[in-house]
Amino acid sequence: MSKVHNFSAGPSILPPEVIKQASEAVLNFNNLNLSLIEISHRSKDFIAVMDKAKALVKELLNVPDGYSILFLQGGASLGFLQVPFNYMKVNGKAAYVNTGVWATKAQKEAKGFGEVLEIASSKDKNFSYIPKSYQIPGDADYLHITSNNTIFGTQFKNFPVSRIPMIADMSSDIFSRKIDVSQFDMIYAGAQKNMGPAGTILFIVKDSSLGKTGREIPTMLDFRSHIKGESMFNTPPVFAVYVSMLTLQWLKDNGGVEWMEKTNQQKADLMYGEIDRNPLFEGTANKTDRSNMNATFVLKDENLKEEFDNMWKAANISGIVGHRDVGGYRASMYNALPLESVQVLVDVMKAFEKKQG
Amino acid sequence: MSKVHNFSAGPSILPPEVIKQASEAVLNFNNLNLSLIEISHRSKDFIAVMDKAKALVKELLNVPDGYSILFLQGGASLGFLQVPFNYMKVNGKAAYVNTGVWATKAQKEAKGFGEVLEIASSKDKNFSYIPKSYQIPGDADYLHITSNNTIFGTQFKNFPVSRIPMIADMSSDIFSRKIDVSQFDMIYAGAQKNMGPAGTILFIVKDSSLGKTGREIPTMLDFRSHIKGESMFNTPPVFAVYVSMLTLQWLKDNGGVEWMEKTNQQKADLMYGEIDRNPLFEGTANKTDRSNMNATFVLKDENLKEEFDNMWKAANISGIVGHRDVGGYRASMYNALPLESVQVLVDVMKAFEKKQG
Repeated sequence: MSKVHNFSAGPSILPPEVIKQASEAVLNFNNLNLSLIEISHRSKDFIAVMDKAKALVKELLNVPDGYSILFLQGGASLGFLQVPFNYMKVNGKAAYVNTGVWATKAQKEAKGFGEVLEIASSKDKNFSYIPKSYQIPGDADYLHITSNNTIFGTQFKNFPVSRIPMIADMSSDIFSRKIDVSQFDMIYAGAQKNMGPAGTILFIVKDSSLGKTGREIPTMLDFRSHIKGESMFNTPPVFAVYVSMLTLQWLKDNGGVEWMEKTNQQKADLMYGEIDRNPLFEGTANKTDRSNMNATFVLKDENLKEEFDNMWKAANISGIVGHRDVGGYRASMYNALPLESVQVLVDVMKAFEKKQG
Repeated sequence: MSKVHNFSAGPSILPPEVIKQASEAVLNFNNLNLSLIEISHRSKDFIAVMDKAKALVKELLNVPDGYSILFLQGGASLGFLQVPFNYMKVNGKAAYVNTGVWATKAQKEAKGFGEVLEIASSKDKNFSYIPKSYQIPGDADYLHITSNNTIFGTQFKNFPVSRIPMIADMSSDIFSRKIDVSQFDMIYAGAQKNMGPAGTILFIVKDSSLGKTGREIPTMLDFRSHIKGESMFNTPPVFAVYVSMLTLQWLKDNGGVEWMEKTNQQKADLMYGEIDRNPLFEGTANKTDRSNMNATFVLKDENLKEEFDNMWKAANISGIVGHRDVGGYRASMYNALPLESVQVLVDVMKAFEKKQG
């Protein structure tokens, strides 16, 4: 059984030890002779899981006091709606930086709540860069950014300095690098890249940022319901929260976010080094904005596609076909992807070059 | 390792063969050498899971043509909000039958969308019965009912005959008995009782019932987005959908809903027979409205509580402590609970009676 090098863009690779523990807990959780998925979420065994998951988020990201941690359902797509419900004032306005497909969707969902200002966009060059010089309107209710753009392979290397509340969708790079949570009023992230399986979303909410809109908010979309319910206002997605907790524990055991940031930099350096060196390939994202999570690249000669595809498939590489909006290839190098897998891909690229003479 | 008799109210018992397959898929799914939870939801392997889950729902419930099957996130609590968004006309009104805590929450969420008419309620007797004689207003946009009331142990034995669209929350009894889907414009059910683990919710939506409200619906709350996206508009809760599919396959393999209905009747007859026979106990729900899923009962003499509790705990019985709104005990007898477990509980009740002399 040879190892698969899993470059999937999400849901994506998780640490082998997490997979093993998750599989065991489905059979028999905490030696209860019951499965994790057939016990009450109000049992002390599951409450301990939820508490630990929340504590690990706080510890790993140095979350300051005054922030609440929530693990909810609905994905970032529902998050796009929760943002204006909780943060846009009645007759208010919000500023969005548009850096890709998901940022566009986030912005779309805020329309109808008030005025939506697209204060910067990289759509003119197929989202291949992160806009840098723009004014953040001081009278907007919040600024929304997407920290990493999975499809286009770009990433904010520095976050805007904002005098208005800043909200970030960090679905595809949370826990991959150090961040200063105090810069943000709210951070959200679907679990299925760096944190766990599909089925839960993390919210890090500054408590004092809530209740300022004058807006009626439906119960399930109101962060205050979930904070009051300690992330169990309704039945939580038990399995997804448990596996996220295990993944965060794995991160902590291995050196935390600081270690992860270094490892991810090594992987990115190796990957982009080869993309730039190898005359058969070219990267699609602006060099200074390249994502350490998702490296997007294309063949200079599309006629060689079949040959290259056969080679990486033979090397047990999986999930590197690019998104249709960019084409070519996308190597997603999330936290759990080992450096070794990147090396295997780089070796295939080198062998491919050699074969072309 | 002695067997636990799991009467948990939800998340609740699942078939042992489902638990085993789920655990294996977390390790290695479809011999891909990858975990179920680390592959793309757009991969052919997962699309096959989603398609099969949807097909099984259609087959097991004889869903007529013109209905769509969705597996989404958010639970019934978000469903309470999706109902008025998709079905209540601008300046419209809706009729609700209030049979318990969840029915009350469903109703609450519709307020603000239009006029909410509570056309019947059993609140006067702590929701211990199902109201029967009430008028369904012909000019309301829909009638909402809760088919089974987990907390209070009551169940609609016959559904109202309604000339207006009928919507039912069937979270705690779907797949437990035959139903005529064509009576309903929409049925919804959280997975975590009879269908699977927490983390997904099933919607059975009559296609022609949508798009009639004149209301702007946020993308993620609009059933049309999800029907168009074939239940994958955004990343689905992969694991929860997979385990639901396995559970539905188990149901089909064992004789389908018809077999389940008979088995559930046997379990209920055994359980309620003992509650009625044993002079130390009494049931809390109106006999004609008793739920075949959740049997609620109390000790006539509360002073005997500790003794009885020690006895059922010694018999490896789990999850029968009643909800705080009713007190006493609740034996949840969902599909996967074997008759044998009910027999064990009944035997404990008999032994307890004997001990009291």
